Parts: sequence; structure tokens; C-alpha cells
Amino acid sequence: MPQLLTGATIIDGVADQGVDGRAILIDEGRIAAIGREADLRVPADVETVDFGGKYLIPGLMNANVHLLMSVFLETLVRYEDRYEDLITEAAQIALKSGMTTVFDTWGPRRALTSVRDRIDRGEIVASRIRCAGNIVGFDGPFSGDFDGRISGVGSSYFVDRINAMWVENTGRHLMWLTPEAVGEEVRDYIGRGIDFVKFASNEHGATAAGAFLQFSGRTQRVIADEAHRAGLTAQSHVSSVEGLRLSLEAGCDLIQHCNVTGPTEIPRETLDLFGERGCGAVLFPLTDNGLSVLKESVSDFEWTMWKAADTNCRNLVGSGATILMANDGGIIAPEVMREPMIKNTWNGLPEGEALGRLATGHFVWLRAMEEKGMSPMELLRAATRNVAEAYRVDDDLGTIETGKIADLVVLDADPLQGAKNYESIHAVIKGGARVDLGALPERPLLTADLPGPAEEESRYHRFLHHGARLPGCPSCLPGPR
Amino acid sequence: MPQLLTGATIIDGVADQGVDGRAILIDEGRIAAIGREADLRVPADVETVDFGGKYLIPGLMNANVHLLMSVFLETLVRYEDRYEDLITEAAQIALKSGMTTVFDTWGPRRALTSVRDRIDRGEIVASRIRCAGNIVGFDGPFSGDFDGRISGVGSSYFVDRINAMWVENTGRHLMWLTPEAVGEEVRDYIGRGIDFVKFASNEHGATAAGAFLQFSGRTQRVIADEAHRAGLTAQSHVSSVEGLRLSLEAGCDLIQHCNVTGPTEIPRETLDLFGERGCGAVLFPLTDNGLSVLKESVSDFEWTMWKAADTNCRNLVGSGATILMANDGGIIAPEVMREPMIKNTWNGLPEGEALGRLATGHFVWLRAMEEKGMSPMELLRAATRNVAEAYRVDDDLGTIETGKIADLVVLDADPLQGAKNYESIHAVIKGGARVDLGALPERPLLTADLPGPAEEESRYHRFLHHGARLPGCPSCLPGPR
Amino acid sequence: MPQLLTGATIIDGVADQGVDGRAILIDEGRIAAIGREADLRVPADVETVDFGGKYLIPGLMNANVHLLMSVFLETLVRYEDRYEDLITEAAQIALKSGMTTVFDTWGPRRALTSVRDRIDRGEIVASRIRCAGNIVGFDGPFSGDFDGRISGVGSSYFVDRINAMWVENTGRHLMWLTPEAVGEEVRDYIGRGIDFVKFASNEHGATAAGAFLQFSGRTQRVIADEAHRAGLTAQSHVSSVEGLRLSLEAGCDLIQHCNVTGPTEIPRETLDLFGERGCGAVLFPLTDNGLSVLKESVSDFEWTMWKAADTNCRNLVGSGATILMANDGGIIAPEVMREPMIKNTWNGLPEGEALGRLATGHFVWLRAMEEKGMSPMELLRAATRNVAEAYRVDDDLGTIETGKIADLVVLDADPLQGAKNYESIHAVIKGGARVDLGALPERPLLTADLPGPAEEESRYHRFLHHGARLPGCPSCLPGPR
Amino acid sequence: MPQLLTGATIIDGVADQGVDGRAILIDEGRIAAIGREADLRVPADVETVDFGGKYLIPGLMNANVHLLMSVFLETLVRYEDRYEDLITEAAQIALKSGMTTVFDTWGPRRALTSVRDRIDRGEIVASRIRCAGNIVGFDGPFSGDFDGRISGVGSSYFVDRINAMWVENTGRHLMWLTPEAVGEEVRDYIGRGIDFVKFASNEHGATAAGAFLQFSGRTQRVIADEAHRAGLTAQSHVSSVEGLRLSLEAGCDLIQHCNVTGPTEIPRETLDLFGERGCGAVLFPLTDNGLSVLKESVSDFEWTMWKAADTNCRNLVGSGATILMANDGGIIAPEVMREPMIKNTWNGLPEGEALGRLATGHFVWLRAMEEKGMSPMELLRAATRNVAEAYRVDDDLGTIETGKIADLVVLDADPLQGAKNYESIHAVIKGGARVDLGALPERPLLTADLPGPAEEESRYHRFLHHGARLPGCPSCLPGPR
Repeated sequence: MPQLLTGATIIDGVADQGVDGRAILIDEGRIAAIGREADLRVPADVETVDFGGKYLIPGLMNANVHLLMSVFLETLVRYEDRYEDLITEAAQIALKSGMTTVFDTWGPRRALTSVRDRIDRGEIVASRIRCAGNIVGFDGPFSGDFDGRISGVGSSYFVDRINAMWVENTGRHLMWLTPEAVGEEVRDYIGRGIDFVKFASNEHGATAAGAFLQFSGRTQRVIADEAHRAGLTAQSHVSSVEGLRLSLEAGCDLIQHCNVTGPTEIPRETLDLFGERGCGAVLFPLTDNGLSVLKESVSDFEWTMWKAADTNCRNLVGSGATILMANDGGIIAPEVMREPMIKNTWNGLPEGEALGRLATGHFVWLRAMEEKGMSPMELLRAATRNVAEAYRVDDDLGTIETGKIADLVVLDADPLQGAKNYESIHAVIKGGARVDLGALPERPLLTADLPGPAEEESRYHRFLHHGARLPGCPSCLPGPR
Repeated sequence: MPQLLTGATIIDGVADQGVDGRAILIDEGRIAAIGREADLRVPADVETVDFGGKYLIPGLMNANVHLLMSVFLETLVRYEDRYEDLITEAAQIALKSGMTTVFDTWGPRRALTSVRDRIDRGEIVASRIRCAGNIVGFDGPFSGDFDGRISGVGSSYFVDRINAMWVENTGRHLMWLTPEAVGEEVRDYIGRGIDFVKFASNEHGATAAGAFLQFSGRTQRVIADEAHRAGLTAQSHVSSVEGLRLSLEAGCDLIQHCNVTGPTEIPRETLDLFGERGCGAVLFPLTDNGLSVLKESVSDFEWTMWKAADTNCRNLVGSGATILMANDGGIIAPEVMREPMIKNTWNGLPEGEALGRLATGHFVWLRAMEEKGMSPMELLRAATRNVAEAYRVDDDLGTIETGKIADLVVLDADPLQGAKNYESIHAVIKGGARVDLGALPERPLLTADLPGPAEEESRYHRFLHHGARLPGCPSCLPGPR
Repeated sequence: MPQLLTGATIIDGVADQGVDGRAILIDEGRIAAIGREADLRVPADVETVDFGGKYLIPGLMNANVHLLMSVFLETLVRYEDRYEDLITEAAQIALKSGMTTVFDTWGPRRALTSVRDRIDRGEIVASRIRCAGNIVGFDGPFSGDFDGRISGVGSSYFVDRINAMWVENTGRHLMWLTPEAVGEEVRDYIGRGIDFVKFASNEHGATAAGAFLQFSGRTQRVIADEAHRAGLTAQSHVSSVEGLRLSLEAGCDLIQHCNVTGPTEIPRETLDLFGERGCGAVLFPLTDNGLSVLKESVSDFEWTMWKAADTNCRNLVGSGATILMANDGGIIAPEVMREPMIKNTWNGLPEGEALGRLATGHFVWLRAMEEKGMSPMELLRAATRNVAEAYRVDDDLGTIETGKIADLVVLDADPLQGAKNYESIHAVIKGGARVDLGALPERPLLTADLPGPAEEESRYHRFLHHGARLPGCPSCLPGPR
Repeated sequence: MPQLLTGATIIDGVADQGVDGRAILIDEGRIAAIGREADLRVPADVETVDFGGKYLIPGLMNANVHLLMSVFLETLVRYEDRYEDLITEAAQIALKSGMTTVFDTWGPRRALTSVRDRIDRGEIVASRIRCAGNIVGFDGPFSGDFDGRISGVGSSYFVDRINAMWVENTGRHLMWLTPEAVGEEVRDYIGRGIDFVKFASNEHGATAAGAFLQFSGRTQRVIADEAHRAGLTAQSHVSSVEGLRLSLEAGCDLIQHCNVTGPTEIPRETLDLFGERGCGAVLFPLTDNGLSVLKESVSDFEWTMWKAADTNCRNLVGSGATILMANDGGIIAPEVMREPMIKNTWNGLPEGEALGRLATGHFVWLRAMEEKGMSPMELLRAATRNVAEAYRVDDDLGTIETGKIADLVVLDADPLQGAKNYESIHAVIKGGARVDLGALPERPLLTADLPGPAEEESRYHRFLHHGARLPGCPSCLPGPR
């Protein structure tokens, strides 16, 4: 049934300001026309929805999420047969938070593409997914690239199976191959139905000084070329200024968390390359408040890295780079969120400043970048049109224009009057259909509350020990055990 | 409906040989009468079952099983809400293998007693369970007493919860208390519905030379006294000759794996104490063949310990000790059973020599002890009457006598002609009801086959790496990383 | 040459107060006479030393030191051929600090007895050493009892050699033996020239809840009996109330750090046993100030243990127990003293409150126990006569009495006016000879300053990294690597 | 005093065969003339040495040694003040084995250059040293690049100091810098007196699949250019085919162990680059016998890497590459050489096949490459002239030509008749002076025998334990502890 949306200020992502007095006609999931209501040729069976006093913006797009983020042994065992349900739940949370499209940049290909297709077929109401599968060059969740302890604790059977689900033929061993041989593997992987190619320019597992390069410039070029030959976009994971430069020169369409470059600020020459190459810059910013909280819990040296990451954000604004909103958004299992060690990550920040949480982190992003000097309209585009263009899906998505898919967010407050107003979601329309926000997610898994204490726990907890060290020999130094 | 079992040779566990030409009348779950069929007063509605040519023995009793044995993080997460199902499955496997009663000597109290009660109420057909809950003094599955690595890998939430389920108020911290204070905690724990008390005389976690004592002689006496005061039996976990002696002197009713005493053989003085104190001796023997296989996979030093354990078995036979059959029987998750490291345990032996497997290990026990010189009738009693007497349940169980519960096993071959014949199970009768062996277990969990390889696995496995070390610097020594 | 010490107030450790106007005649290393100068029969060649205004007390005796305390891989490798020099240096530091006799209760037997003998023969001027060698039952410095990581890092050749030097035939494997067999090993070890026997009642390596027992009561009795049969005293290492009780009942002559019993206070019954059995109580107290500093750096749970240790000290004062001064005194290599982890030990306290430092910790002990209510004369005896009596060397040592060895300390301030005054050492006389305090130690090893930075270090340190973690993936949790 | 060497067959490294009937006149350390004795203008005071029947070849040159190879904590602590002595000993061993010049490609700059200068000044008789100091990009011996466990075991003081000695300003943090900033650090390091620049193209620490790149192609070019600008040669450490290609393109003068490229054989294109670029190829070959022994002790996967390394050697012979002899030659502390883990390295091979031992590994190299098809004269040049040319020291070294430094080896057997004959060293002449081979090394350190067992060791070893695992619970899986 066609719909006519009336009454709202429309911020279409194209014009430099919002427009009042226009209505949007939606038919068969797309925007059929935009104009003064009087001017529109409206079908007889149209349903008119009055959004008077509201603000209509394009559906938000997140350039970097991980719908199955909680790759801890516990989570992956507990939900062993339900990875698609976890992904579905995350995609529903995303939709509920205004993101009509999300780009999953690391996860298990088979499960992700299966959920993607079910959403595309309308079987599930959730955020539209486009996904990369594995990051080419990375080993699996239970490896030195992520958590190497698990391969000694989990059974080989399970460890191998999980790593296989994430890695398939695109793991660390590619580092041993020639550029051409890497290209062949990537071509093979593309053939299995991913939507874009993401590869590692820098390593992931590094925990100390420096960041190794995963692939040479030539290999990176071969990978990007394979993606382009297949009509896909290419992007990379970087964590050093040289890793960043190599990827820019390799022809990436966008680069993930390009502001994260260790303690070294991105040099001017490299900043300029973004504009010259037309490469999208995905930033991971923190709010000023978030940074000041974090500063208290990290070492002086780590702080130099967070500081450089912040300076890079500021320098990229106005550098000519096209900036994209993204936040590594994911859902971490609630029992892990309780762990004290999480406080040194951005998920450990107070919820209002925590960048990586799927439901709220993109709002943090918008407020953080507002602080760093992006204009209101730049912010809107970073979260919509820029993402669509960088991922080459702007024929259908990213702005409110006739002919495009009707992905819309209705806000109570004007987003151009303050980034905070993005949180005032009144309604979400995806593919022309209004989303029943209250029904999302229907069956909470990772977002469910933890069960209360078992009967035995009180009897256990009233004893004090919990493995605390015995000062039986009070002059002895504690060793690590 | 009353039943009359006819035709079989009856080996009742009391007489020194089998008797032919007698029938057994069963009514209301108990043995109503035994005698020549002609002499019996048989109710009108009796059902007569002809076991001509078969051998009727008391239901087998296993003095040491762990119905939830697979305390690996993977298993405990995977079946987080189904521990009772795991226990049920194990109890059904036990029943199918001829064990009408099993004594679970370490496990989660609440789940075990819940399943126990459902079986006792007839809601589930499975082996009768009597259980200890925790071994007093031991910390939980995710601690230095079992697998200390897990507390760093699993979430605190889950690690604490699991440990609480096993430990409650009876963990390691008791070592810091006075004997009287330990006694109070044990009394409290008894009050929660366990069937007997098991405590640690020696530690469990030791991996190198020596075996610490968990409790002093006085504390052990206090614990045993608490059990007796509550009308329960007491037993201990030992792994050194001195740990064994302390427990004998503390008044234990039986002692677990008392032949396992490191490289030191039990001295004569201590052997004699079994008889003097009327304490049951639970042995963990291996067959000669099993020992010779094991010898190939363990170090010379470990071999001295297996050898001493074997010598202890031989010395206890004929020492006056009452010997009880037990095997730590449990089901280990199939993915763990594939791990190479398992080969140094008795579960890693060829199935016919593997002591610890719940379904078959007791048959190994019987063959092993036959090799070590026990007579056919002694073997039968070790697996029936002796266990019942040591656990003080011989009013109801352990022999085929009028008035006792009708727990019976029907064998095709004569068990007094060779221990191997215990495997020829024709029928199992528990509480007077014939068990439908084919229906056990109904819904396999840990005994189910592993799922086949996922689609991605072939693509992963054709690459060679699997974390193999890189001889990039072929003169460097491999460090542990 | 005979000496006549005049002018000082003599606090002889026998009388309940100091005495003025007496002189002490020393001849051939012993106290030949004490009395009014006029009454003494003084040899013609006597040298008279006037200590007018000073205070003369018996030489201090420390009931628990470790002259080779720094059992870190680095130290033990660096001084591989100089362990006797390390021991010598420590014994000289001890002497310089007023301790004319120290009891080394854990260390390498051969090196310790060699230095002991050289000191006894007068070849070295240093504190008199009496030593136990290994603590019977403990494994070596590079084992789970101390630092288990080393056996994976050091060469087997060195690790085995070091462990052998400390352990010989008295290690952890004794836990596997019968009491009688343990007794034989102890007898053998005694035969190698140790001065007293120390054994483990509780384990040393424990780091979490509880404290295992190393030996049963019966084994402890056998060990103590072996010591007594050989004319030696016996003592034990304890860290739980039950470990303490067992050792008291086993007939120990003294018990080390008997106030350290985890979070549990020693029960009255056990406190009383000290007096009944005539067993010396070695306490490890902290000053109130030290405790308050420590409280800031340890967990709440650990604090319960320090608190109980303090309460035990207070309860033992006035319980009838004979209290002995000791402090685990040793010298830790200066590079280790710099490590942050040391702050959770008592060596990490400000120097004036640090109990374990060889040169100063005994002064901390005296001030701490003064705070806990010991009278001035009790304090003096705890540091002199009580130690001599507990170790059965009071025929020669511990008081200023005619016939005893002339071990004396001359103080500027009155020790009965405040424990702080023990620090006012004016002179030390050992075996009748005045010690040249300025010459001790002659060739500093562990007490030497660390060399300054190497040329390269500034160039290295100006870079920031030092293994700091890379927040390359700022949402990832840090794993242990 | 001038010398005239007569009688020998001279294989000068230039001509394609040996020449008889010529004499060599040496004066002031250099070759003054070569010719028929009758034709030479010989000084009056000449000393004539008759080498009739012998073979005179240029002094051997090893393109890759580590004179301080034993970077284990134990060694570095034990000889903390004697690193120069360790280096001296190694340089003497090298000279004794026919190597008149060695190129140390990783070690502590200050100590190496100090010994180098003392040798150059004639204060020490030893092999001529030219050295790189650190491998640019590598972290120190006590880091994840070598042995990361040490930084938790050694004191921070010592760990930092050692790492500083090796790393200075050229460590892992360079990976975070721009190419230009890396260049500045390299220039600074060159200024401290190294002889050539070695940098990391691939990582060192990798232990599993793949080999990260340390530096991009551009950074590698900047480093090589800095070396050339300073008149030095540049070389790299590689372990993958792509790492190799990058270094060839960056303009390296030689590449270390370029045959070690994981499981992937070097592609033809890259093989050809060696000739095109005039880059020296350092190979690490094993003998056929060595390979077959090794195959028994490594996993199938590791074997694919050793196999590829061997194929690379064979393919590089005759590819146009200039092949250089080298072997990572060093002395590993004797206690480490005893460790079982060493058997998976080439040092663990039988001595005759072990490539990495300083005294003998170069002989293994020569026999191995003979097997792989190098001609006798190619072999000689790989060990002499080729090395001199690649390192740009061929004005002075590498052949027997008039004007060059008189570095000569006199062999009993003809090296052109079999590589084995290089072992028949009769005399070594360095800088015109005959070396007293018997006097080298004068004071053995790492080559000294280990001291025999200490008195205590027999008493310790007769007990069996040594940390062996206790099968106290024989059904439990061993965890890593």
C-alpha cells in the first residue's frame, strides 16, 4: 500500500539544509516522488502518515559493525547452533537504533550471508546486512590474532571448526604466498557470496610496540584489483601510518579506523591522499569526556596512542577526506561486560561515551565528531550518503531521493541543531515499511539479562577466598600462577 | 503385577555357588520368595518369565562414578541448562550396562539429588543414584584442583557459578579452619540432602612429586564423625600411603582408589588396617594388557606409579580387606576423547582395557581383578554385596534374598566361569521391573555422534598450517608462546 | 688478652632490670666474672674498656634468617660460584646490626655449613650461624614451592643443580613415603652436619585459598624424634591453625611464624599448648604503621589474613608462650627490590616498617611487639635468652652470665626505655672480641649499588614502548600474552 | 719480517683452477708479489716457508655469524661483564676454523665494535669482525621477537638493560614511523660505528603460519639508501617470498637466508632478480643426511618448510645469483645444547651435519652445497671472493692477489677435489702473520666443559620425581601447569 509522509522537515542528505512543506510518496518500497503534497500524484489507496513537527532523514548506515562480535569461547559454545540467531538479534538492535543498513566487516561468512539473504527476502525484519566475511589474512577467533589461549583450552575439534568458519581459505598462511597466489584465493572467496573485500594491511594480534604489515603493497593491490574486477569494493584494516599509506595506494575504496595509527600522527602527505584517491575515511573517535575517563585507566604510553588517534580525527576533518561513520559496533556477552579488564577498552567507558556498543555507539560517534569540528550537515552525510557512496550502493541508498529505496528515520528533534538529537528516534522506515520498534528484538539472546544467582552461590560467596593469594610467606614475591 | 522368574541358575551373592532349580517370586518391587517353584505360594495374577539356561545375579553396584564427569569448559557451557539431562543419560547408560545402583562420589549436589529423586520416584528409568556432592575440601572444576587455566579464560560470572555449584560451603578454605569449624560446615552440607560424605585426605591438583594432605587426622575424624552422627557413611579420596592411613584411622567406611599411592607400595601395617577397621577398599586396577599398552606412553617415572598401584591391588587381594568395584566411571565429551593428550590416561587405552568409561569400565575392572587373583565369587561380591555393605544399604540391596529390592541382572553366560561373562547381559531388572534396554538412553547427549564437518572446514583444512611453528630462524629454539 | 668492661648499665637478660656499677671480665672469649670492679680478680695484662653511660645487653639472636635469600634465577646465576660470599656478606651485615648469632632456617646446606665453620674457626668475622639446610619436604627454589616458572626458562642443567643444592634427599617426594621412611631420610640429612631440623607442616607454594598439610601428625612426630635423638632441636613451617596444632603436638621446640594462619585466628586451646609444651613461638609482626600502609596495597581478602596475623601476635603475648624474635631476614638483590610487585610484601613497606630486611627488620620487630604490649624486659629476652633457650644453646649464649660466651651489644640509649633504642648500637662484642663495625661487609655484593645506566640505555628509553599494549583494536579485550 | 710462501698449489679465487710452482711474497701484512720464486724480487731478510704439497686458498669469509649467540637469560647474566670476552672467544674459534673474516649480523653494537677495534689494532689475535649491531626493527633478546617469557622472569632492570644493549634506537617502534623518520633513526645508528646495515624485511618472532612484514617496500628503500649514502652495504632478514622480493627491489647488497621462505618456493621471477640486481644470496643449506635426520623429529608441516628451503637452494644454484657462504654461526652455551628441545633445530643435528655451530658449520655448508650441485670453484668463491664483493671489501679481501691483505688458509688436501677437504686446515695466515692455532681460544668460556655434578646432586637424582606428573587421578587429563 502506498504511503504519503507529510508534515516533517526533510533533510535529504543532498540539499545543504532541511526543507519544510514537502511530502514523500512511497510505493513498492521506494521513494516514488517528493514534493508539495498538492503537486504529487497520489494513488487512491495511499495511506497518509502525518509527521508534523518531526525530522525525516535517510536511514543511518554504519560502515563497520560485527554482528557476531562476542567471539569468546563461552559465547561461541553456548550458542553453537544459533549464530544466525545472534546475528539476527544484532541486526534487529541495529535497526531499532536507526541503522537501516550495516556493513559487517568481520564475521563468519556462511551465517552472515544466510541472515543477509533472509532479511533481503523479507523473512526477518532487521537492518540490511552487507558483509565481508573474514578479513583476508587473519587467522580465526581462537588464534594468536585474537585469543591464542583458547587453542590450548578448547578441544581441537571445536577450535578448528570455529576457526574454519571464520577463516576458510583466507587466513594467515596467505602471508607466505606470492601476490598472484593470494589473488587466486581472494577470487575463490569472493565467489562464495561476500559483498565486499576487506583485507589486513596491518596485523591484528599485536599487543606491544609496532604493528607488523600483513601484506606488501603489491599484494594489497592484487587483492583490491580482484575485488574491483568482481564489481566489489575493497577496504583494509590498518593500525600504522605506513599500513595506511600502502592501502591508500593500493586503491582501497575505504579504510577502516584509519585514525588508529599507534603513537604517530598521520603525515600531511597521507592525509591528502584520501582526497586524491577518493577513498573513504572510517574514523573511530571518542568524545572529549570519554577520553578523559579513559586517560585515568590506561598507562602513559597507551595514552599517547589514544591522543594520536584523536588528533588524526581532527586533522582528517577538513582535509578533503570523505568521512564515514562506524564504530566496530557489536554486542558483547553480558558476562564479559562485567569483567574488570574491559575498563581499558572503549566498551568500558560510561555508556554515553562507549563507542563500540551496537545500540548506542553510533550516537557517541556523532557527538564525538561534532566536538571535533564537523558541521551538522557533514555529520549527517558521514552517517548516510558518504557510507553509501564509499560502498558503491548509492544508487539505492544513502539519501532521500526519488527512485531510491525508502529507508528513513523520523526524529523528534532537529539533528542539525545538535548531534544529540539523533537519539530522538520516533520511527524507522525500512524499504518503505514502518518498523515495529517495540517488537525488536523478539527473542533476546546476548541482550537478555543474566540469570540470577543459583541457589549454591550464596553459600559459596560468603566464603572469602576466590583464589586470593595467600600471604603464607609474607616476604615472598607473588609469581604468576 | 507379581512375576515369577524361573529356569535360571541363581547366584545370589550369599551362597558360595550358584543354585539351579529355584524360582524367584517378585512382588511390589521386592523379592517375595525364593524356592522351588512347586514350593512357592504364587499369586494368581503372576507373570512367569522363563530364564532357562541363563544366570541370575544381583544387580551390579559401582562404588565410584561421576555421572557428570565432563567438567570441561566446553561441556559445561554447552549444556549449561541441561546438567540434569547429562546426569540422567549417564544413569541410563549405567543401568543398560547392568549397574542397578551407582554411587556418585563427586558432582554438583543440586542436579544430582534432583535426578536421584526423580529416579527414585519412578519418573525416570535409570540406575539408582546415591551421591556425595562435593568432595569436602576440593575447590571447583575451574580451579587449581582441576583446571586452573579456566578461571583466566572463562568469565568470572560463569567460573564462579560453576565452582559454586560443585563446592558450596565445602571448598579449599576449610583447610584454614579448625577441625570443629570444618565439622560445622560438613553438618550444614549434610543437611542439604547428600547420601554419604566424601572428603579429601590428599589433594587432587598435584601434578608433580608428592601429594599434599588436605586435612589432618583430627579433622578427618571430625568429618567422619559428623557423617556417622547423621547416619551416613564416610569415605575419602587418597593418593599417598600416609593419606590412606589417616583415613583408615579416621573411621572411614570405605576408601576410594586406595591402591593409588604414588610410587610407594602400601605397607603391610596399613593393609592390615582394612580388615581390622572393617573398611571397604575401592580399587582401580588395570588389566595386564592395559598396563603394557600404557607403559609405552608414559615416562619411566610415571610407570613406577602405575606399577605400585598394580602391586597394591595384588597385595590387597587376600589381605582381609573387603574389596569394592568402582572405576571413576563417567562419560567424557566425544570431542575431548579425540584429543591426543588423553592417551596417557586410562580412558586413552583401547576400549576393552579402558577402566574409566561408564558403559564398559566395570567389565574391565572384573577382568583385571580376575587376573590379579580374585576368585569368581569374590569378584561377584565385590561388584554387589560388598558395595552394599560398605555403603550400609545392604538391608535393601546387594544380594538376592527374600525381602530385598528386586535388582537383578540376567546373564547368558556363567559369570563364575570367567569375568568376561559379565558382559553377556540378557536382561536387567530393577525394582522388580524389567528394563527396556533398547530404550536407553532415549535422547543421547554426550554419547551422541559428533556432527560432521561444516562446509568451511574442508577449505580450511586443505591449508597446512594449524599453528605449526615456523622455522624462519632454524637455529632458534622454540619457546612456548 | 683479657678485657674488663666498665661503666655500663648491664642488662643481663636474667635479672628483671639493669644493674649499674658492675664490671665484666672477659677472658678467652668467655665471661670470666661479673661484679664490682673492686671485687674482681683481674689479670695483670687486662685491657680495661670504659663504657660509661652505655647499656650492655646480650648479643642479639635472630631465630629465623635466610642468609641466601635472593633465590631468583638472576641472582643464583650471577653469583654461581660465590654463594659462600653471599652468605658471608649477609652474616657480616647481621653482625653489624647487633646480631651475634643467627639461625638460618632455609638455604643450601653445603655452602651454609662451610661458612658457618669458617666463622666458628675465626677465619671470618661475622654473625655466628646455625643452620637447618632445607626445610624437610620442600622442593627447590626453581619448583612449584617457590618459583615454578624457572624450570621452563632456565636450563635443566642449572635448574636441577640448584634444586639439588637446596633439597638433596629431603624434598617433596617425602610426602609419598611412610613416616618411618621419612625418618630415615631425615636421619641421613642430619648426618651431613646441620644444626637443627626444620620441616614443613604446611606447604609453601600455596597461592590461593587454604594451605595444604605437608606431613601428617605421625610423620611430624617421627621427624621431631629423629632430631631429638640426634641431640638437635626441631621446628616447623606453618601457615594454618591445624598445621600449627600438629606441630605443637609433634614436639617441636619452636615454631616459625606461628602467627601466620590465613584468615583464621589461633584458637585458645592451641595458644595454651605453647606454654604446656614449652614450645617457642616465633612471631612475624608488623608495626601499626606498616599495617596501615600495607592495607592500601592488598585486596580486602588478603587484608583479612594480615589482620588475623596481627591478632595472633597480640593474643600470643601474655598467653604463656615463649616469644622469639625473627623476621625471615635476608638480602634481596637490589634489582628485584625495584620491582613494583614487591610492594605487596613486607619488604615493600617503607624501610622503617619493613620486617624482612636483614639489617633493620629486627628493629622493626622490636618496635612492633612493643606496640602489641610486650614489656621492655620481655622484648629483650625475646631477642636473646628466649632464642638461646628454644634452640638449646643457652649454656653458651643468650644472657650475660659468668661462663657464657662473651657476645655483647653496647647501646648508647637504654633499651628498656623504648624499643627504638636498640638501634643505637655503639659497639658489638662477639666471642670476647670487639667487632670493627666499619669493616663490615668488606666486599659488598648484594648490598652494592647497582651500576649506572649503560650508554645504550638512554637511546632505548627515550622511545616509549617497553612492551605497552597497542590499542590497535580498541574494542578488543587484552588477553594475556 | 717479509715471508715467502713456497711449494703450495695456489688457488687464488680468481683463476679457474689451482696453479703450481708459484711463490707468494708477503710484506707488511699484504701480498707483495706472486710469481715463480726465481722471478720475485725478494728482500734480504725474508723468511721462506715451504708449503710443499699443500693448498693455499684465500682466508674463508663467513657472511653471517653471531659471535654472541647465546642470548639466554642464564648466559647473559652469568657473563654480564664479559660479553667482550665471549665475542673474543667466538672470533678466535672462527679464526681457528679458517675464517679470517666474519660478518656479525646481529648482536650488541658496543661490545662488538669494541672487540672489532681491538682485533684490528692487533691487540687480540682473532677473526676480523665486521658488524651490523641490531637488525633494524627487531626488539631485544628478552622480547616477543626472541624470548618473551624472560621479561616476566628477569628483573626489569636487567631486561631493559639487555634489550637496550641490542636495540638502542632501532627497535620495533620503528614500525610505527614514517619511512623518512625510520631513515633518520638509521642514520643516527650508522653514526655509532657499525660496518653495514641489516634490517628486518620479515618478522623474527613468528611461530605459526605466515610471516609478517616488518617494513614496507618504501621504508626498506629508505633504509638501504641511508646505508649506501653512508658508504655501507645494506642487507635484510627475510622469511617469505614476498619479504624477499621487497628487499631485492629495495636495493639490498645481499639477503640473508633467502632460501628460507616458509612452505613456498621462490618464484622464477624473484630468482632472476638476484642476477639482475647484483644482489648476493646467502643460503642456509642442510646436507641430505642432515635433512633426513631432521625429518624424523619435525612435524609433517614443518617438513614442508625445510623441503622448500632445500629446493630454493637448488634452484638458486645456476640461477645467476651470487651465492655466499654463511651459517648463523655461533656458540650456544653447553647447558642449553643438552636440552632435548634443541633437536628440532639444526644445531640439534649430529655434529657433522649441524649447520649453525661456529667451529664446524661452514664445513657443513660447503659439503651441503656440493651436494646441491655447486662446482668446486663456485664453492671456493662462495666462501671467499663472493662474500668480499657483496660486502664491498674486495679491495682488500677475498682473493689471493697482489696488493690484498694476506689472509690465507693452507690445506693439506685439495679443496677442489671435494668439499670435505676444507677441513684439512694446516695453517692459517691472517694479515700476513701465521696464527698459532693451538693457542686459540686461550681462556675458554662457552666452549669450556661444564663443571661436574655437585656433591648434592647424586642425593637429589636418586629420587625419581623431577616434577613428573602424578597420576593420582588417573582418569584426569593433564593440564599445563
